[in-house]
Amino acid sequence: MSSKAPRGKRGRKSPAREELRFIPLGGLGQIGKNMFVLEYGEDMIVVDCGLMFPDEEMLGIDFVIPDASYLFENRERIRGLVLTHGHEDHIGSLPFILPRIDVPLFGTKLTLAMVDAKFQDSCPDYKPRSVEVQAGEKFTLGCFEVTFLSVCHSIPDGVGLAVETPVGTVIHTGDFKLDPTPVDGRITDYSAFADFGSKGVLLMLSDSTNVERPGFTQSERIIGRTLERLLQLHRNKRVIIAAFSTNLHRSQQILQAASRFNRKVALMGRSMVQNVNLAMDLGYIDADRDILVPMEDAGRVPDNKLIVLTTGSQGEPFSGLVRMSKGEHRFVNLGPGDLVAVFATPIPGNERLVSRTINRLFECGCEVVYDRDQEVHVSGHAAREELKMMLSIVRPRYFVPLHGEYRHLVRHAKLAQEMDIPQKNTFVLQNGDVLGLDGNRAQVRRGAAPSGDILVDGMVLGEMQNSLLKERLEISEEGIVVVSLVLDGELRLAAGPIIESIGFLHMDDAQQIKDDLVREIESTLEKHSGRTGEEEQRVAQKVRGRVRNVLKKHLRTPPVVRVLITIVKG
Amino acid sequence: MSSKAPRGKRGRKSPAREELRFIPLGGLGQIGKNMFVLEYGEDMIVVDCGLMFPDEEMLGIDFVIPDASYLFENRERIRGLVLTHGHEDHIGSLPFILPRIDVPLFGTKLTLAMVDAKFQDSCPDYKPRSVEVQAGEKFTLGCFEVTFLSVCHSIPDGVGLAVETPVGTVIHTGDFKLDPTPVDGRITDYSAFADFGSKGVLLMLSDSTNVERPGFTQSERIIGRTLERLLQLHRNKRVIIAAFSTNLHRSQQILQAASRFNRKVALMGRSMVQNVNLAMDLGYIDADRDILVPMEDAGRVPDNKLIVLTTGSQGEPFSGLVRMSKGEHRFVNLGPGDLVAVFATPIPGNERLVSRTINRLFECGCEVVYDRDQEVHVSGHAAREELKMMLSIVRPRYFVPLHGEYRHLVRHAKLAQEMDIPQKNTFVLQNGDVLGLDGNRAQVRRGAAPSGDILVDGMVLGEMQNSLLKERLEISEEGIVVVSLVLDGELRLAAGPIIESIGFLHMDDAQQIKDDLVREIESTLEKHSGRTGEEEQRVAQKVRGRVRNVLKKHLRTPPVVRVLITIVKG
Repeated sequence: MSSKAPRGKRGRKSPAREELRFIPLGGLGQIGKNMFVLEYGEDMIVVDCGLMFPDEEMLGIDFVIPDASYLFENRERIRGLVLTHGHEDHIGSLPFILPRIDVPLFGTKLTLAMVDAKFQDSCPDYKPRSVEVQAGEKFTLGCFEVTFLSVCHSIPDGVGLAVETPVGTVIHTGDFKLDPTPVDGRITDYSAFADFGSKGVLLMLSDSTNVERPGFTQSERIIGRTLERLLQLHRNKRVIIAAFSTNLHRSQQILQAASRFNRKVALMGRSMVQNVNLAMDLGYIDADRDILVPMEDAGRVPDNKLIVLTTGSQGEPFSGLVRMSKGEHRFVNLGPGDLVAVFATPIPGNERLVSRTINRLFECGCEVVYDRDQEVHVSGHAAREELKMMLSIVRPRYFVPLHGEYRHLVRHAKLAQEMDIPQKNTFVLQNGDVLGLDGNRAQVRRGAAPSGDILVDGMVLGEMQNSLLKERLEISEEGIVVVSLVLDGELRLAAGPIIESIGFLHMDDAQQIKDDLVREIESTLEKHSGRTGEEEQRVAQKVRGRVRNVLKKHLRTPPVVRVLITIVKG
Repeated sequence: MSSKAPRGKRGRKSPAREELRFIPLGGLGQIGKNMFVLEYGEDMIVVDCGLMFPDEEMLGIDFVIPDASYLFENRERIRGLVLTHGHEDHIGSLPFILPRIDVPLFGTKLTLAMVDAKFQDSCPDYKPRSVEVQAGEKFTLGCFEVTFLSVCHSIPDGVGLAVETPVGTVIHTGDFKLDPTPVDGRITDYSAFADFGSKGVLLMLSDSTNVERPGFTQSERIIGRTLERLLQLHRNKRVIIAAFSTNLHRSQQILQAASRFNRKVALMGRSMVQNVNLAMDLGYIDADRDILVPMEDAGRVPDNKLIVLTTGSQGEPFSGLVRMSKGEHRFVNLGPGDLVAVFATPIPGNERLVSRTINRLFECGCEVVYDRDQEVHVSGHAAREELKMMLSIVRPRYFVPLHGEYRHLVRHAKLAQEMDIPQKNTFVLQNGDVLGLDGNRAQVRRGAAPSGDILVDGMVLGEMQNSLLKERLEISEEGIVVVSLVLDGELRLAAGPIIESIGFLHMDDAQQIKDDLVREIESTLEKHSGRTGEEEQRVAQKVRGRVRNVLKKHLRTPPVVRVLITIVKG
């Protein structure tokens, strides 16, 4: 999946001819593993370092990280790694990449705290060199001057970036929306974006996630209204709420509602406990500590005085909500006295997991509130009218849509064209493309930087080759048959063949197939026995072919077949 | 997955105490494999015989059929199998079940023709004993009088059923909606439903698919308007349309629009060719034959005079649309001169496949129209207001929601309660439950009939055991390591062990792990060699345990391990 990096000379040229390069290493043509590079001369900065969750056909894969070889190769030129916010698709690959480049990390307080927690969990030996920056502040990284611009998103303390470079300013929106009434009162800093816009912006990079949605994304505040309504309606019920553990605005509103309705809150799920406590410690959630009750003591709180706030809104197999729905939770047994509200919509790809969880909750007999009925979720990303507004404020010369599948990028580029950015100045890029800007012109070199997906299967193994994944897919579809042959020096069978089947027919149930196989193996070997020129490798291949042919006669799609040969010299 | 059938006496009782039994064998708590039984005394009828498409974790499974052992056990009592319409989730299991019970088949002309085509494809030796019935007609099956009631759906010639039984009338809506302006003018026969309603209905069975959707489902006719708009807007483009091959109303509208805009139509995809031709032969599509052009000749038609009508609206891997999007189609190469319109929304579970296909189409550079923008799809199922209307027309004493996941059934039951059917008279059933009605009272015996999922993996194999599926899941997640040992009579290694890895580490890349494994295997065997009391089975188990321990040291989650032992007597 990787293309090779250009090996051209990168020595100092005369400053006038130097170009600014924008190089996306992840996050284009996909939603996840966001990471890009800005470089000029000998200076380079990296923005974000995210992971992506695997597709269902990536069997056994835990997650996907970007191929960072371009960073490893240019380690000495990287002046810093800048983080826009604390979501996994922006910080999740840090443990795999940061220790190898060991550059300073720039982010807001909450983002850096989440990174610290992540390293403590998964990579405790490495201590990031973190530099806290507040929205509105400016700092210098080589020839780049970076300003953090406050943006609203579904996690607090998110920022966009203004990067002043020798050839002009780059504006990166980050993941944003224009919620005019955010829960924490911290709005997207229109005026800062507009200031840079009026001074002239060379390149704008913008979030494309919701380009397919018309209108404006609703304010997070509507969740508070829904909560109020539900708690009023179900005064006598225990209330279980599932939400994203990183959506601390939502957690804040849930704690507020709990306090208003005189209920205690028990947190469930490791990430929920961790993130809510972190946010309270740092002041991102404003609530009395004593509103919280440990899960193991929640049983002592009367049902109508309790809210359980849990993970599992995406139907994650080991989350609190899913275990409850299966009746497998130690502390909570769901029944008709419960209201379960899922305050999220399924992320694309999770629809079936969520749907199954909802069905199981109905089977428990509880009242269930989910995305089909109520206002239980708002997106963290700007919809079309907001994207237009941002374009009209920033008024860039060049435009590159980020953070979207291919169709989102195309449609966002078209939106920019509708906003009078010439088509030749909008670029739908792919990961590994290099956009060069020298102040006079822009040029794209397709696939000029190495990029790709690195599949991670367990923390230790690290990198996973594609061929292994292909093998997994094959054996998962039809199973596997292993034939073990013991041959003597003349390639005669020294004992009966063993035929082992995994995920395929139980051989005991298929005596006829087994008999056919043994007969075929014996006759194949008879033809070869006594020959000395033959190698066991070739015999194995022949047996494999014959075994597959026999199985094909019985079955439409035969399994994977492997033949192991041991030679025993008599 | 099967529960056992009741083995009680089923001898003749006095008629007064005889009860009508409704027994769902599929389609409850799931969308798919619809099949139910009505029985009274010695008479039984079966309604529908569908299949279900597998979940993604059913690795290698082609589809799922209902456990029909209740039918096989009671074969001699079945008076007929009645089909409501020709969708796979209503007729798809026939090749697996009908030949074994060999009862007459009742259906409308189109439904029976689709069944015939299915048997010719997959089971040509069996000829169904089909009896054609038109909507409005009544026929007798034992003590049951069955009337076909015309209903609108996303396939023509669908029916609901009125089944008059000795204890009262059962109304089954079938899959329906109340489209007041259907393409073929054949509306849902309100007045027939109302007639039975006014005479008194004992039990109503109704489609729950869209109970979560408010309002009314739109008329299929809006598709015609969207088509018109698109063809007007893109007069110079070649137009490719993906749609469901069974939605013949939609195909009809596409052919009509083609004729109005003076375009030829090329059909692509086996089922599209088969179904459209069948419908033209039988008069369900009204169009001139010469509007069709064979796919291989479509290249001779100017682009702006051609519509390609193809399968693949669900992102099916081998469909026409998907092959085109990958640039793998023999006759069509997509580019900026093409408009591709997907006239369908993703069926739950297909979201990712569809999304990937749409992204690839954008990468081809063509104009793409899909569900995010336009009116490109309407459902074939009644939404809440229609369900209420049907309830108000039929006014049954007892109500059982069918055709839905568990939450749909619960919500449909609640909807019936809102329509003043007492809660005690609405039954949320599961497959295998038996609802007994004797005219005075209703009684549910949970799981009293055998039911369950039969997983089909290839046409020949037929039934697939759960244990195999579990094995497939295991090997798919982490791969498998097979150790082949050749031992002499004293259980000493007669040759070096073979360690084969599939879907796991390439052993060549992991020499240290391999060395550790060989050392561990040798030391395990040394402890056992010379002993005579030990069986090879036990040795294999010990080696397996040791191998797993070594792998666990290196990896978070070790693969499946199998050990094969061949004893060679020296």
